[in-house]
Amino acid sequence: MTYTLVLLRHGESEWNAKNLFTGWVDVDLTDKGRAEAANGGKLLRDADILPDVVHTSLLRRAITTAHLSLDVADRHWIPVHRSWRLNERHYGALQGKDKKATLEEFGEEQFMTWRRSFDVPPPPIEPGAEFSQDADPRYADLGDEAPRTECLKDVIERFLPYWDEAIVPDLLAGRTVLVAAHGNSLRAMVKHLDGISDDDIVGLNIPTGMPLVYRLDDDLKPTVPGGEYLDPEAAKAAAEAVANQGR
Amino acid sequence: MTYTLVLLRHGESEWNAKNLFTGWVDVDLTDKGRAEAANGGKLLRDADILPDVVHTSLLRRAITTAHLSLDVADRHWIPVHRSWRLNERHYGALQGKDKKATLEEFGEEQFMTWRRSFDVPPPPIEPGAEFSQDADPRYADLGDEAPRTECLKDVIERFLPYWDEAIVPDLLAGRTVLVAAHGNSLRAMVKHLDGISDDDIVGLNIPTGMPLVYRLDDDLKPTVPGGEYLDPEAAKAAAEAVANQGR
Repeated sequence: MTYTLVLLRHGESEWNAKNLFTGWVDVDLTDKGRAEAANGGKLLRDADILPDVVHTSLLRRAITTAHLSLDVADRHWIPVHRSWRLNERHYGALQGKDKKATLEEFGEEQFMTWRRSFDVPPPPIEPGAEFSQDADPRYADLGDEAPRTECLKDVIERFLPYWDEAIVPDLLAGRTVLVAAHGNSLRAMVKHLDGISDDDIVGLNIPTGMPLVYRLDDDLKPTVPGGEYLDPEAAKAAAEAVANQGR
Repeated sequence: MTYTLVLLRHGESEWNAKNLFTGWVDVDLTDKGRAEAANGGKLLRDADILPDVVHTSLLRRAITTAHLSLDVADRHWIPVHRSWRLNERHYGALQGKDKKATLEEFGEEQFMTWRRSFDVPPPPIEPGAEFSQDADPRYADLGDEAPRTECLKDVIERFLPYWDEAIVPDLLAGRTVLVAAHGNSLRAMVKHLDGISDDDIVGLNIPTGMPLVYRLDDDLKPTVPGGEYLDPEAAKAAAEAVANQGR
């Protein structure tokens, strides 16, 4: 028995296109991002990898990516689960800031620490700040648990309970599971699956709109380390482009 | 305490536009239908009636209507539940047939019996017929329970368990519930809520893309019989247009 897990990072968002730090700010996909999502669904359909259940974050760019890709794959009707635990990393006080301007203001070292450090979060966002989620009803139940900033380590900590309690049961039931999420919440998943070190995970880039398929053994370990992209050449080129963001 | 239930019939589909009997055939929305769905979301947002949970059928036109309307209302992130019990009436052997040609072939009386009789279903669709759902994985679990044709009475019978087991618990938990579904599954709901007779329900037309809001008392009885459309004038004009379909 192997279990099938498909990771899908949302397509280009309006703030990807504008080169702004996004985090939990709930921006929409661009037309390019919608096309990426649809293409992801086409790749799934063509490979006959048909999700039985989908898990998304609470953010529009992942939710719409799931909707568009599943619609193309003719799997729009499957059960849906959503959780803040699949959200993008909260980018703290950097949310809404221009990446290039931030690089120039704070310098390469600080910039790369905030972007790529495993355990150093950006400064927390102030209560009531323009791009905070303080008044957002979708996080009202979280109370004090709602983050004001996160490093990748924080993302992993809040992601793992969802993996154990929501995703693993679906896998063990034999369902093909699609997770439509974000660069950092998918990094958390890949780190967990492949046993990647804290140092190495920060350099791993997951391209947008490209289904990454893991076949897992009885212990939920990948049969192919790192999984397999359905369109490996496009995935490689896209990952390199992501790595150069902000340059 | 009043409970809030919002019914939303999907926007125009490709086969509405072509005047074909659709039933369980999984056709897409037209651009007009997408605009209707988005407008439904705008009406909800402007009225500050914000769903906490959404229930849809397994059909693309209802699923996409829910997605588009909730996206505009900024409620795309709420929990989603789907069930075949909210599907449109199965139109049996008429699925895929032109409404006008069917009217001419079989005459007004037979045509109106199939369209508007409470308890006379159209002939069943043949196993393996072009527009049957025999090979459709989303109904595989139903086995022999999967209908081959339905009258409105059949729709009510398969809808009511979902009302009791899935929708009522959400209402009693104080959630504002959106149901994105179809002309006949919403008729089943309205009949149940308002206690409409078998004879009268067949003449009740629910317009597309127009949120119909019920405020329910402690016994889940409507405080305003028939509920309230958020845009009553547009709803009245649209309902009259539906009544004239196939003429």
